[in-house]
Amino acid sequence: MSKWYEDKTCDEGIVISSRIRLARNIKKYPFPEMLSKEQSEEMIKTLKEALINDRLPIAKDFEYIEVDSLPALNKRQLMEKHIISPELVSKNKPCGVLVNKDYSISIMLNEEDHVRIQTVFSGENIDKAWDLADKIDDVIEESVEYAYNEKYGYITACPTNMGTGLRASFMMHLPFLEREGQMQNILNAVNKFGVTIRGIYGEGSEALGSIYQVSNQVTMGQSEQEIIKNLKNVVSFIKEKETKLREECISKSKVDVEDNIYRSLGIIENARKMSGAEAMRHISNIREGYILGFKDLPQLKETIYSVMINIQPGNIGIADGKAVDVNKRDELRADYLRKVFK
Amino acid sequence: MSKWYEDKTCDEGIVISSRIRLARNIKKYPFPEMLSKEQSEEMIKTLKEALINDRLPIAKDFEYIEVDSLPALNKRQLMEKHIISPELVSKNKPCGVLVNKDYSISIMLNEEDHVRIQTVFSGENIDKAWDLADKIDDVIEESVEYAYNEKYGYITACPTNMGTGLRASFMMHLPFLEREGQMQNILNAVNKFGVTIRGIYGEGSEALGSIYQVSNQVTMGQSEQEIIKNLKNVVSFIKEKETKLREECISKSKVDVEDNIYRSLGIIENARKMSGAEAMRHISNIREGYILGFKDLPQLKETIYSVMINIQPGNIGIADGKAVDVNKRDELRADYLRKVFK
Repeated sequence: MSKWYEDKTCDEGIVISSRIRLARNIKKYPFPEMLSKEQSEEMIKTLKEALINDRLPIAKDFEYIEVDSLPALNKRQLMEKHIISPELVSKNKPCGVLVNKDYSISIMLNEEDHVRIQTVFSGENIDKAWDLADKIDDVIEESVEYAYNEKYGYITACPTNMGTGLRASFMMHLPFLEREGQMQNILNAVNKFGVTIRGIYGEGSEALGSIYQVSNQVTMGQSEQEIIKNLKNVVSFIKEKETKLREECISKSKVDVEDNIYRSLGIIENARKMSGAEAMRHISNIREGYILGFKDLPQLKETIYSVMINIQPGNIGIADGKAVDVNKRDELRADYLRKVFK
Repeated sequence: MSKWYEDKTCDEGIVISSRIRLARNIKKYPFPEMLSKEQSEEMIKTLKEALINDRLPIAKDFEYIEVDSLPALNKRQLMEKHIISPELVSKNKPCGVLVNKDYSISIMLNEEDHVRIQTVFSGENIDKAWDLADKIDDVIEESVEYAYNEKYGYITACPTNMGTGLRASFMMHLPFLEREGQMQNILNAVNKFGVTIRGIYGEGSEALGSIYQVSNQVTMGQSEQEIIKNLKNVVSFIKEKETKLREECISKSKVDVEDNIYRSLGIIENARKMSGAEAMRHISNIREGYILGFKDLPQLKETIYSVMINIQPGNIGIADGKAVDVNKRDELRADYLRKVFK
């Protein structure tokens, strides 16, 4: 079963993927921060039972992963595949994730909130992601009573999620805006529409490989449909800016654009060691080349975005099941990339 | 007829080539600096007649180039091929060079001194270069009276050449000493033996591509044989240092050495524009790979050193017989290198 990021759609345009996240809490339990070990276990059990049943046909595909009992390396791998959040990686209490086979659904239990429903699809598929998340949400609500207030909406551990508990986001590849130093302008512009831009692994993470998560900041005072519609408009605006700038750069100096792409290809095909940040930069450049339709680039079996995931430290830095040191990791990364781009 | 720098010997080791230069002046003329146009022409005529005659069998191969009447671009090309000096490029008086077919002999007339005899061979062939220069010197002396003083030896325009008028030099490729920041130490050490180190195009030029000219600084108080013998010892010392450091670097981290070489190859094979300095750096790295015996490097038709000459601004920056601007030149250089390293 291939994963959502192995779908060719995520290589086809500026938008790599679309994601919905819903934050929910169960009325009868305190927030995860305040839960004892026993309460956590009970709460998780309740949620698992609410989800794995006949009312949700997709639930037969779910696998439950007890995250807190995993070795650090495996937690990191799940995070790099966008299955769990950095928050869940560092959690010390019982916690876990229900994940389906293509990783399009992952439901974190006992994260910052009791439930974090996440749905993600390659390309521009936010409506599809919303419909699926909404359905999962309904199924849970049939079994448990959510913490909900008529005036404020869904109650969440952090006030920034109150109301809808919705974070809709698009993962976007913005190499030209980044290179031309325009990301700050874009950020200022979209902030006015209640939208924010984060790095590839969410809040506080770097924008490795010119990849940015564009998501709604405001969760209250608007319906879910309004939030998604507004975000789509902002994403269209950013896409237009990136496309226009790309055309400008090409018309100003095509050879500079080409030089940048082919140099990255040459380095990727030949280097014997490479840091993650450097690799992301080169893969990003080569992705540009595919988007521009350059015919002489190697045809990959993998999607670009799955290569980006595969070279992250947790996924690449393993030999014989164990994490290796950073030097060895940089070698394994270069070896893998030479093979992929052969 | 192939040129000395097209001989495979110049790619085989640390020493690329060996050169002898003799500075001579004719007694009856003032130094070139003081010569009128008419005197310059007369002096040049005298020297040409002294050289192009039956006593010097090789003279039948000589071509005389009237350097002062050449366009700037062509002067620059001759300089890049080591046929004339930067001094002759900027000369405003009548001046020229007698050059043979493989460029192993070039005799500059009316440079800083009346005569500058230069002989150069690929690899470690300083004795061969000396024998040839000495023979040419003898032939000239049969026809003209040199400015010579019993106490000081040959009189030259610049006191640093007085005595023997000899500059013996080895062109050396020293990537490891350079990268590890040891060139200043080496320079300090060899200075004590009356030897100096300059860049690829002699005095005041940069050490592009980790290439250095190692030559005697002292021209007086020693015989030509002693100067050459001393220089050979110093060159052996530098070779040993470079070789030892290379081995140390490989034993410390072979992957770093390889990474550096293959990255340069990847860039050379793919870039769409490249400055001369960057190109020299990459070619230097790839040369290292050949020296280390890496089997999967492309097999060139050209020697590495002739590629280094061919990418210099005057030689690469021409389209339809005219010099192009620096941007176009960087593109032509990248195009040429992609073709050579295919």
